[in-house]
Amino acid sequence: MGAPPDGTRFVLPDAAARRVQVVTSLRDLFHGWGYDLVEVPSLERYDPSHPRAGQSFKLSDRDSGVLALRSDFTPALAQLVRLAHPAVAGGAARAIRYQYAGSVWHAIDPELARTREFTQVGIELVGVSSARADAELIHLARESVRTVGLVPRVEVGNPGFVRSAFASAGIPLPLHAACADAIDRKDRSDLADLLTPLQIEREAQRAVLAIPDLYGGIETLDLARRAVPWPAAHRELDRVAGVLREFEDDSDLMVDLSMARRLSYYTGITFRAYTLDFGQPLLGGGRYDGSLLPAAAGFSIGLERLMRALTRRSATVEPPPRVLSLDDPGARALRDAGVRVVRALSTELAAARLEASERGIPYLLVAGALEAVAERGDDLGALEAILEARGEGPRG
Amino acid sequence: MGAPPDGTRFVLPDAAARRVQVVTSLRDLFHGWGYDLVEVPSLERYDPSHPRAGQSFKLSDRDSGVLALRSDFTPALAQLVRLAHPAVAGGAARAIRYQYAGSVWHAIDPELARTREFTQVGIELVGVSSARADAELIHLARESVRTVGLVPRVEVGNPGFVRSAFASAGIPLPLHAACADAIDRKDRSDLADLLTPLQIEREAQRAVLAIPDLYGGIETLDLARRAVPWPAAHRELDRVAGVLREFEDDSDLMVDLSMARRLSYYTGITFRAYTLDFGQPLLGGGRYDGSLLPAAAGFSIGLERLMRALTRRSATVEPPPRVLSLDDPGARALRDAGVRVVRALSTELAAARLEASERGIPYLLVAGALEAVAERGDDLGALEAILEARGEGPRG
Repeated sequence: MGAPPDGTRFVLPDAAARRVQVVTSLRDLFHGWGYDLVEVPSLERYDPSHPRAGQSFKLSDRDSGVLALRSDFTPALAQLVRLAHPAVAGGAARAIRYQYAGSVWHAIDPELARTREFTQVGIELVGVSSARADAELIHLARESVRTVGLVPRVEVGNPGFVRSAFASAGIPLPLHAACADAIDRKDRSDLADLLTPLQIEREAQRAVLAIPDLYGGIETLDLARRAVPWPAAHRELDRVAGVLREFEDDSDLMVDLSMARRLSYYTGITFRAYTLDFGQPLLGGGRYDGSLLPAAAGFSIGLERLMRALTRRSATVEPPPRVLSLDDPGARALRDAGVRVVRALSTELAAARLEASERGIPYLLVAGALEAVAERGDDLGALEAILEARGEGPRG
Repeated sequence: MGAPPDGTRFVLPDAAARRVQVVTSLRDLFHGWGYDLVEVPSLERYDPSHPRAGQSFKLSDRDSGVLALRSDFTPALAQLVRLAHPAVAGGAARAIRYQYAGSVWHAIDPELARTREFTQVGIELVGVSSARADAELIHLARESVRTVGLVPRVEVGNPGFVRSAFASAGIPLPLHAACADAIDRKDRSDLADLLTPLQIEREAQRAVLAIPDLYGGIETLDLARRAVPWPAAHRELDRVAGVLREFEDDSDLMVDLSMARRLSYYTGITFRAYTLDFGQPLLGGGRYDGSLLPAAAGFSIGLERLMRALTRRSATVEPPPRVLSLDDPGARALRDAGVRVVRALSTELAAARLEASERGIPYLLVAGALEAVAERGDDLGALEAILEARGEGPRG
């Protein structure tokens, strides 16, 4: 029994307290907007058609069945909708708003991606497909970043635009994934190497090669209309424009038409949120109508990554308890007022003083009176007021 | 993709909201007493000496290693202490207080115990071994039940008493587990069947047969002193008496000297908490000095069982959102005041009214004014006051 398995880790008190704080802020935000918390099992029946089947940890079950550890929340939530709301799963238009938080596991090589146990927090808006629904999700993606104290930048794209451009340009289907990948990485030279050998008109080739640069403010949509001339592609740009029109305040929103990850999964708008000076996306999501449910969209926040972005900015470390107590009724009064009070484990005064000073606890509570032990805190008066008010309250 | 795997389940919004409420109350209680939240991995290296190795789900890792899903928090927390506090793991006397909450998995036959994915919430007090430390844990076990709104009954025992009686009576070691099991089940006839064939004095046999009945108030300790005459056993009774003496208020505490589960694991006081009209224990714990760490004790609450006990008493169901909104700034003001507001997915007034009434949302917010849709709630005035106060606040 030494270190934990590769790609897993212990979370010590300071970090765990910060994680709870962040998860709670996000839960409250989503709750305020009508998103109901649900829980789904960590164990699933192994399904080779699952979007992340190749990455999942497999387990043998007793009846020779194969189980998998949850590698993504979306398929499990879709299954929950099919069981709890069969009409919506069958196509009825009725908004269902769910939120979730929990672990996912990826059995991928830890040399490539060190973490194998992740925490995801996210929401799904199921049963409706409209620009207004997309805008609600993008707004909440932006608010998620703001609510934890970071400055957001939300990039909105539409893989349908890329897919449509490929079709109009006549790029053969087997090359779509490689071209989409080059575009998503904004790698023009890689994209050119893929396009050059093909029998494609120069005009069409130039249009596709323009896509990696279609990134910026809302004016990017107009640039795209000129650079990519096909009507089908313009209809996909209209979808992005329609969503952005829903925003009275479009600050911190960007257009990124080179967004082309998971081209066969996402069927509408996709988006990612970033923050200043932190290169990796904090969350990602989009619309996947027809992939798992007739109408559904959502996003998922990677908690570990969000915590790394937060650590660079601020360090709201959990303060140590304020009081070490040899007086149980006094401790109760302080705790009722929200003060953290540790019960002394020795009843000897000298030993208790040592316990407090070793742990950095500033006050010792003995027989109703507070004694400053280590540094003199600036809250002695406030704590004494709580103790003095005791006799007056209904507790008696 | 149908129902989830045997022994796992989805948790729908009402139940999930109640679970979060309970977990949060417990976390706040433990936090107030100085217990720091930590997190441990769900994936562990498989260890045949792990107390629950036989029950765990196993997984093959890529490098031919074997992993196991966490089946218990205590060994993982002991490992965390060994890594983060090697001096304490080596025997230094310094109190470390940890709390945790999360899933554990048992691969046992679901015919016998239907659930295979459980949630445990608990605390550990490591690095000290004293009656005062034991009393703190028992007090918090009692408070855990109270804080969720149930009436507790905490039963305190000492497996060392049973072990010592077996030794003094001359019961052969290979029979200890079976005898302890019969005593723990309070099954006198089974116990008699085990003892009768043995070459044991009638006096000693009578003493051991008395143990299943040593259950009740604090006077049980005196009854035990008379029924079980050996000095070594009396020293074990003194330990229980010492812990109970720590309580000024010993209401809801009981003595159960027949507590003899996991005899080779627990080395001191053990306890279980119950509530009225609910037969199964809500939590269990005790002292296991030397089993995983030199000095350690703790307890663990089974969240699913606690929720079943709570459902019998009360049903604090999550209310549906109060307002459906077509007015984003107004919705923001209400949410800032803690009101749950869903954004209407249609901007047509008639469709929004239908959306509200179908979802049981009492008010529609349009252009700064609230309109009663379904039943007329009794909080219209309060909500209107929030909206009216808007212009006056610093938000402008």
